[in-house]
Amino acid sequence: MDHFIDWRESAGINREKFYKTTLWQGEHVSMGLNCLESNQTQSVHAHQGADKIYFVLEGRGRFTIGAEERDARAGMLVVAPAGVPHGVTNASAERLSLLVAIAPGIK
Amino acid sequence: MDHFIDWRESAGINREKFYKTTLWQGEHVSMGLNCLESNQTQSVHAHQGADKIYFVLEGRGRFTIGAEERDARAGMLVVAPAGVPHGVTNASAERLSLLVAIAPGIK
Repeated sequence: MDHFIDWRESAGINREKFYKTTLWQGEHVSMGLNCLESNQTQSVHAHQGADKIYFVLEGRGRFTIGAEERDARAGMLVVAPAGVPHGVTNASAERLSLLVAIAPGIK
Repeated sequence: MDHFIDWRESAGINREKFYKTTLWQGEHVSMGLNCLESNQTQSVHAHQGADKIYFVLEGRGRFTIGAEERDARAGMLVVAPAGVPHGVTNASAERLSLLVAIAPGIK
């Protein structure tokens, strides 16, 4: 598996729901890329026993983390500790691209 | 602990070695920020039992991952699987800022 990864080469569109791909899968962490077009949503859900970290690569998202709802733009980290419900909506006109780390990785 | 984190608010300089701070510490993953000024180096080292992922936030670094040596610029992921020796040098004139995920997190 390549150790040097440019997420821009893996970006994509999924009109049905939102675009999702794996960038790297390690023993202890999974790195993924999510691309949400305007008005696409990742519904609120929780990972029991896994921390999830979003890093906003481009665009702006409205994130739900537990009881908190807040916008985050490019350059922000958004953290969902294990068990905490989380989701995101792209309420903007531009694509929202997110780097996503999940640890331990989904096997 | 805050769930919304702007790494730019935690950036810094350490003239002695390089600047290093923790952005978030979870049960399964640690998120850190490393800032290397021009000519600063993180020596090659390895984490047994922990995957490490760098994401280049700004600047350009010369990374060593195992036997591989390669430049990576802003927007690139650089992955060091558990046990694989890794390090980075800022051979450029600009600051190199790196988001760093280590899983499982260092307790």
